[in-house]
Amino acid sequence: MIFDVVARDYASAARRGLLRTPHGTVETPAFIPCATAGSVKGLVHSQLADLGTSIILCNTFHLMLRPGVDIIDRQGRLHRFIGWDQTLLTDSGGFQLFSMSELAKVSEKGIAFSSPWDGRRMFITPEDVIDMQVKIGADLIVSLDYCTPYPATRRETEKQVDLTAGWEKRCIDAFRNRTDSQDQSLAGVVQGGIYPDLRRESLTRVLDMKFDTLAIGGLSVGEPRDAKLEVLDSLAPLYPPALPRHLLGVGTPEDIIEGVRRGIDLFDCVLPTRNARNGMLFTTKGKVRIKNARYADDPAPPDPDCRCYTCRNFSRSYLRHLFLSQEISSSTLNTIHNLYFYLDMMAEIRESITLSNFEGFARRFLAGLEVEAVSL
Amino acid sequence: MIFDVVARDYASAARRGLLRTPHGTVETPAFIPCATAGSVKGLVHSQLADLGTSIILCNTFHLMLRPGVDIIDRQGRLHRFIGWDQTLLTDSGGFQLFSMSELAKVSEKGIAFSSPWDGRRMFITPEDVIDMQVKIGADLIVSLDYCTPYPATRRETEKQVDLTAGWEKRCIDAFRNRTDSQDQSLAGVVQGGIYPDLRRESLTRVLDMKFDTLAIGGLSVGEPRDAKLEVLDSLAPLYPPALPRHLLGVGTPEDIIEGVRRGIDLFDCVLPTRNARNGMLFTTKGKVRIKNARYADDPAPPDPDCRCYTCRNFSRSYLRHLFLSQEISSSTLNTIHNLYFYLDMMAEIRESITLSNFEGFARRFLAGLEVEAVSL
Repeated sequence: MIFDVVARDYASAARRGLLRTPHGTVETPAFIPCATAGSVKGLVHSQLADLGTSIILCNTFHLMLRPGVDIIDRQGRLHRFIGWDQTLLTDSGGFQLFSMSELAKVSEKGIAFSSPWDGRRMFITPEDVIDMQVKIGADLIVSLDYCTPYPATRRETEKQVDLTAGWEKRCIDAFRNRTDSQDQSLAGVVQGGIYPDLRRESLTRVLDMKFDTLAIGGLSVGEPRDAKLEVLDSLAPLYPPALPRHLLGVGTPEDIIEGVRRGIDLFDCVLPTRNARNGMLFTTKGKVRIKNARYADDPAPPDPDCRCYTCRNFSRSYLRHLFLSQEISSSTLNTIHNLYFYLDMMAEIRESITLSNFEGFARRFLAGLEVEAVSL
Repeated sequence: MIFDVVARDYASAARRGLLRTPHGTVETPAFIPCATAGSVKGLVHSQLADLGTSIILCNTFHLMLRPGVDIIDRQGRLHRFIGWDQTLLTDSGGFQLFSMSELAKVSEKGIAFSSPWDGRRMFITPEDVIDMQVKIGADLIVSLDYCTPYPATRRETEKQVDLTAGWEKRCIDAFRNRTDSQDQSLAGVVQGGIYPDLRRESLTRVLDMKFDTLAIGGLSVGEPRDAKLEVLDSLAPLYPPALPRHLLGVGTPEDIIEGVRRGIDLFDCVLPTRNARNGMLFTTKGKVRIKNARYADDPAPPDPDCRCYTCRNFSRSYLRHLFLSQEISSSTLNTIHNLYFYLDMMAEIRESITLSNFEGFARRFLAGLEVEAVSL
């Protein structure tokens, strides 16, 4: 993986870059759609490619449980198994381990948990997480971290930063000792909850271990928005320029803009795809909840200014009908629109950085989001 | 609507034609995918167009209940409402009235039934069925018939043929009296259960009323296969050449071939799309039930000889994983494959008629269907 910064904004830490992997080039700042179990929910890959997606994320935790790492390995690793020929990222599975398995028990050695499907008791070590992700074979992989929940006391958070550092050391050692991970890049994860000094300590320890990529974890776990921004503010001056920075699991359009402003290059989140399936459409003039009765007879597209397939061809009236009829195409059309919105926003962000006018873009864009769709 | 026969098979009643409507030309024999509530389940319209679909069918019964005929009318009629610019057909709703509403009560005047959604008591006359379909505005519409269930005694069937003839007379009168139905064509429906002489009587009465299109109803209601073929055999010599003939709700690939052999031009059925969602894929070498454990590690596409998007890009192993994971893309990819299979079969049928070798095609094709997929 090669990362080059190609433009910087003058008035903020925003930067534009090119991330080159064995499976193509990702323009950053980038939004990474989530293909949890190997498929972006609601779409087939050709629709993703039509949207201009150059990278997707799959979840190690889900793939480990089904179809299992061995099948993916035998089928020629993940790109071949799912039929996606552009860049792939897998997460460590840590976040899902904590959030989906109520009985997860953590020790220095690893994580004991119950399968959320059949209750089977399982145990996973940092070395396992690397072994699985190498076998799965995504271009970008992530080391195991202890995702600090919110709220957590300072003392708990200190322990979690320690635990994370220990796990990450074992991850990078395991990764470097493999001969079959040559084409992959490994991210270290910064934790530390809402405590800026613990975050900085965690960052220092991650940087010492010489990861290929930097990931910031635990900033989409319910913490107050101000605390999140304070953490990002405190980290921004400390990032080495050469490493790409991935803000894990973030977020809303507003959060992405705040992240870019603070030097983040990569974002991933289920929000645009999940909200699409729930009938919530993002537009540059506010959110459209498509089941709302006010749209029953509305011949306008979700966003008259949007050029996505959905907005060029379909009315709110029809989209509301599809949603109420629980048609599969409702999920598909809404997902196409929301991902187009996100990807178009990222393209505008990149362009504004080239023009060194990111703040101008951000001001205009954020003002638009506050307008209620009813006024369209 | 203009219909021209462009080729005839020498050894059977199979014929090739062009059905021209205000929204394009349909090559016949044609299979019409079902877009029950205004959307082919699992696909968006661009995927249908990519498959070469030139006509789809929507169900009046479903559209009447949701979103309601008035909304479709106000939105500029059905083509505009659903954003489909090729040929559209609506059925009469009669079949659904009988099959979905247990408490339907039939009289000469019309049908009383309870809404399957809210139990509301409703009453529908033949004139209502025409009024709704004219407002909906599909290119091809169908008059109300009494769909004879199986089994039914000869005496019951006689009554139903009488009732159907009365309703159809009212339908065509209502249709001819409208000034806003100029661009539409109306089909009369032949009933008569499994009694060839009653079928012939029904056909004669329908022909006397000078419909634009001929539909054969009540041959997908559980009757024995031999009885169905006997009815089609007895009707085939009696069709006037100029009218397109639509075998309603049929069917399997085998049934379609038997229908073409007996002079049928149009078919519609939920089978390829419904089976796709249930994980059953049609191939030229037999059916593939994708959830079968034997496919867990199978890198081959569903049908190595198929050129559809699914078979060109994805393995049985991945498709099985998507099905077990209940991913939306499972429905989409399976539906693309099954509709490709049906539409490709129709294209091969048409070509074989041009070459006057329909029987050769049918023999080869039916032999392939009997091979078990396991032998692939």
